[in-house]
Amino acid sequence: MSALDWSAVFATRTERMRASEIRELLKLLDQPDIISFAGGIPDPSLFPVEAIRDAQDAILADPVTAAQALQYSVSEGFIGLRRWIVGHMAATGVPCDVDNILITCGSQQGLDFLGKLLLSPGDTALVEAPTYLGALQAFNAYEPRWDTLNVDGGNRTPAAYADAAAAATPGGRVKFAYVVPDFANPTGLSLSVESRKALLALAAELEIPVIEDAAYRQIAFDGEPLPAILALDCAANGGDIDKTRTVYCGTFSKTLVPAMRVGWIVAARPIIEKLVLTKQAGDLHSSTLAQMTMARVAETTFDANVLRARALYRGRRDALMAALAASMPAGVGWTKPKGGLFAWVTLPEGIDGAELLAHAIAEERVAFVPGGAFFAEDRMANTIRLNFSLPNESAIAEGIGRLGRLIGRRAA
Amino acid sequence: MSALDWSAVFATRTERMRASEIRELLKLLDQPDIISFAGGIPDPSLFPVEAIRDAQDAILADPVTAAQALQYSVSEGFIGLRRWIVGHMAATGVPCDVDNILITCGSQQGLDFLGKLLLSPGDTALVEAPTYLGALQAFNAYEPRWDTLNVDGGNRTPAAYADAAAAATPGGRVKFAYVVPDFANPTGLSLSVESRKALLALAAELEIPVIEDAAYRQIAFDGEPLPAILALDCAANGGDIDKTRTVYCGTFSKTLVPAMRVGWIVAARPIIEKLVLTKQAGDLHSSTLAQMTMARVAETTFDANVLRARALYRGRRDALMAALAASMPAGVGWTKPKGGLFAWVTLPEGIDGAELLAHAIAEERVAFVPGGAFFAEDRMANTIRLNFSLPNESAIAEGIGRLGRLIGRRAA
Repeated sequence: MSALDWSAVFATRTERMRASEIRELLKLLDQPDIISFAGGIPDPSLFPVEAIRDAQDAILADPVTAAQALQYSVSEGFIGLRRWIVGHMAATGVPCDVDNILITCGSQQGLDFLGKLLLSPGDTALVEAPTYLGALQAFNAYEPRWDTLNVDGGNRTPAAYADAAAAATPGGRVKFAYVVPDFANPTGLSLSVESRKALLALAAELEIPVIEDAAYRQIAFDGEPLPAILALDCAANGGDIDKTRTVYCGTFSKTLVPAMRVGWIVAARPIIEKLVLTKQAGDLHSSTLAQMTMARVAETTFDANVLRARALYRGRRDALMAALAASMPAGVGWTKPKGGLFAWVTLPEGIDGAELLAHAIAEERVAFVPGGAFFAEDRMANTIRLNFSLPNESAIAEGIGRLGRLIGRRAA
Repeated sequence: MSALDWSAVFATRTERMRASEIRELLKLLDQPDIISFAGGIPDPSLFPVEAIRDAQDAILADPVTAAQALQYSVSEGFIGLRRWIVGHMAATGVPCDVDNILITCGSQQGLDFLGKLLLSPGDTALVEAPTYLGALQAFNAYEPRWDTLNVDGGNRTPAAYADAAAAATPGGRVKFAYVVPDFANPTGLSLSVESRKALLALAAELEIPVIEDAAYRQIAFDGEPLPAILALDCAANGGDIDKTRTVYCGTFSKTLVPAMRVGWIVAARPIIEKLVLTKQAGDLHSSTLAQMTMARVAETTFDANVLRARALYRGRRDALMAALAASMPAGVGWTKPKGGLFAWVTLPEGIDGAELLAHAIAEERVAFVPGGAFFAEDRMANTIRLNFSLPNESAIAEGIGRLGRLIGRRAA
């Protein structure tokens, strides 16, 4: 019998599935002579290995908790972890209940579920330019039309967004606005309080939810981060989260460890109830053992680990800023992040980030992510993203020195 | 500002998302006086707790493996686990390579990804009646049209399936056939070798893949299970898996533990490559620690644990068969499973499984899953699914005695 023509059975959405530049680049990290500013990889020295080991040991040593940790459990997530998140969100200015929380496999799964729940093909998703590549990948599977937020620079009018959505797709409408308000991936920048409030007002006019990706929120170098959008939304609604429109995606990936794949969504009950059904159909539930472990680890080490991460990454941010100032030729600009893991570099016109990467690897053994990948449309090719959480300070100085030389040669 | 009307922003697919009867029933398990034949819950006495604890301890005690276990990793899955699966699949008659494997969060996630990859709205999915409820939930999110396989009883002609698909949806076609060939959920029955081959022939005529859900395959009570469909497909294609059309979904949930959420898909490279992109957009990757742990645990305990599971569940199957024969009134029929976790009971006409459940809980403190939930359409209401993996033999005798009394009263 003849082999199957797989392309004939794939859904139309697969036309938008492309191999990610980030993913291909992650493979470079294994080559020891490359200094990598690619990826979004936390420094493993921050991983609370002992706390994780102790927690798992204790859970598995007790027959009652062991049986619970290894058995099927509810799609909403382990109640003990959701209780810790209630406290954490209260400290973030968000009064909520365990019923306002779904545990996800990292915040990436939260984004996938939100795309699945909100987007019919042709519906419009509002995103910043640039924005998180993983969000574009997650949402793309649900075949949206994109439109561009310019939160700090001035959004268009609600009617302009709504009219464009309706004109592009019969029956289509704007379904949500997605932002990374704190120390964003890829720019490292944060939205001002005024911009957060303006975004909520725009969303109210458009009658849409706001998806707040808070992945980097805890990694603040200069005091506490600005109020969460969900906190502002709660405050404007008398403290009643069930009246809010903001869907908050949190994760332990940047504060504790990424590979346990534990994140969460906090939102009004009507959408959490649908998200629980999405989780159930999607993978039944997250690992019970991982959830029970992270509940214990968060209880004992979250605050201290956040302080350690802030201190370590603050030093690396400083090293990156100094190296960029020392090494970049004229015509190169960059952001000054007050937190997070990334800075965003604008190259002289005519230098393409993707082409630069090929030269950077071949000629200077240095890696980064070309900026074009972070745009839903209208890519600014002369941009790159630099990660500063993994290379140490001397590697940062050396790597940026190499990169500066290369850009100098390419610009000449 | 007025609260958001969430129903106005949900995608059309959410109209098909309903709370699962199984999920609601899982909540009953906490009430100690209820004898539950609901759920699909393995007996926790089978969980290899010590092996898991030792594996995690060893991984986290070594700084190199600890850093690997807790760091971001590739979407395909941990290479050591994929290597173990290569050997496991070879023993199943399937020669494959690590590049033919994607690690998923349980086989449920595999089903979700396959629906996402293959189904555009209105495309036809072929399923048995009854079939696994979780598969219906996973595929439903992608808005298929259903059509019914009758693999052992005689399928319709390929043209009849294709014509019905084209007639129902302009541009729509049959996209796959989904079966649980071994000790199926919910019936406990297996497809004969002839039926497996007939299904492959039908799929070849329709130019579609076959999704083989092998969740219960290892739980065989009377010798080894029949050849896997993928094994037959490989054999018919000169041993070249990349020429096959069968997508095999495996899991450790029934053989080792469910809550680590580790499953896998084995298939031809063209679909695995797309599934890897789906995994990347969906949740980046499965827990590295869980994958590394299961690789070690599978290496040391898989074979022995399968034998333990077979022996334990065989005894319970026997107890269930004896209890049904002793306690059921005339007019009640049931399957005789040669493996797996379930038997399927047909009630006298006019007794609705869902109504019976309400009475069973209220009057007899016994639980099961009404059979109607397992049909994509044309529900047979006078059916129920009995799980025999969790209640012990005396609970089975007592519970089936209660159920027989109740059915006798209702039928009278």
